Amino acid sequence: MTGDCIFCKIIRGEIPSVKIYEDENVVAFLDIYPINPGHTLVVPKRHVEYLHELKDDEAAALINAVKKLAPRIVEAMGADGYNVVTNNGRAAGQVIFHVHFHIVPRFEDDKCRFDCERSKPSMEELEKVGEQIRRAIG
Amino acid sequence: MTGDCIFCKIIRGEIPSVKIYEDENVVAFLDIYPINPGHTLVVPKRHVEYLHELKDDEAAALINAVKKLAPRIVEAMGADGYNVVTNNGRAAGQVIFHVHFHIVPRFEDDKCRFDCERSKPSMEELEKVGEQIRRAIG
Ligand SMILES: [Zn+2]
Ligand SMILES: [Zn+2]
Repeated sequence: MTGDCIFCKIIRGEIPSVKIYEDENVVAFLDIYPINPGHTLVVPKRHVEYLHELKDDEAAALINAVKKLAPRIVEAMGADGYNVVTNNGRAAGQVIFHVHFHIVPRFEDDKCRFDCERSKPSMEELEKVGEQIRRAIG
Repeated sequence: MTGDCIFCKIIRGEIPSVKIYEDENVVAFLDIYPINPGHTLVVPKRHVEYLHELKDDEAAALINAVKKLAPRIVEAMGADGYNVVTNNGRAAGQVIFHVHFHIVPRFEDDKCRFDCERSKPSMEELEKVGEQIRRAIG
């Protein structure tokens, strides 16, 4: 439902936002709860819930806006690097169901961590998982 | 230096890996330290350090492989969602300097969190940041 979607409202200008970029396919605006200053959201203008529902040219427009903006944001903020993150599904932390890429400027001394505990499966276990995925790819 | 790059070695088949997908531009293989089973890395065949150094068509090929693979990985793992993450620069947690997207399958009850503490700046503070970034975009 695009009527209730907060990002569609931002795109239409019905809710205030700090837009930093706009082209025919994409809008970029600041996250109002930034992890670090300059934390930006990049969204397609068309209301699509998940990354995998985008058409190829829509996904291309989105990632190309991200890669154009990210180094400019890093420069503007005097940052040392950046994360690009997109969460798909509630289990993945998605809150707004209009696909969006986070660009998070990162600083050497910040407290943020975009990583989690990791395991060390055997090559045999990995092969089994790989086989399951290859079957699903078909 | 592509000679020492572990991902270039994987692409050339000089180091074993569990590949799940390959096309003319992109290779996808399992992370050997998975956050969750099915954790996959998607990389361009050309050695490029950072996302913003990719050409437009290379970035498009990469994100389109990601969006094709992600729902298949979720299906194969019986997962509930997925994160897509790319870290650029040591400050952002990048360890291998050959650009890569992580696809991390997520489960309702897993312990992983791809988020960090957030702030709540005033609209005025946000506007100031937006102005800085717009100037850097030019
Ligand atoms: Zn929307
Ligand atoms: Zn490489």
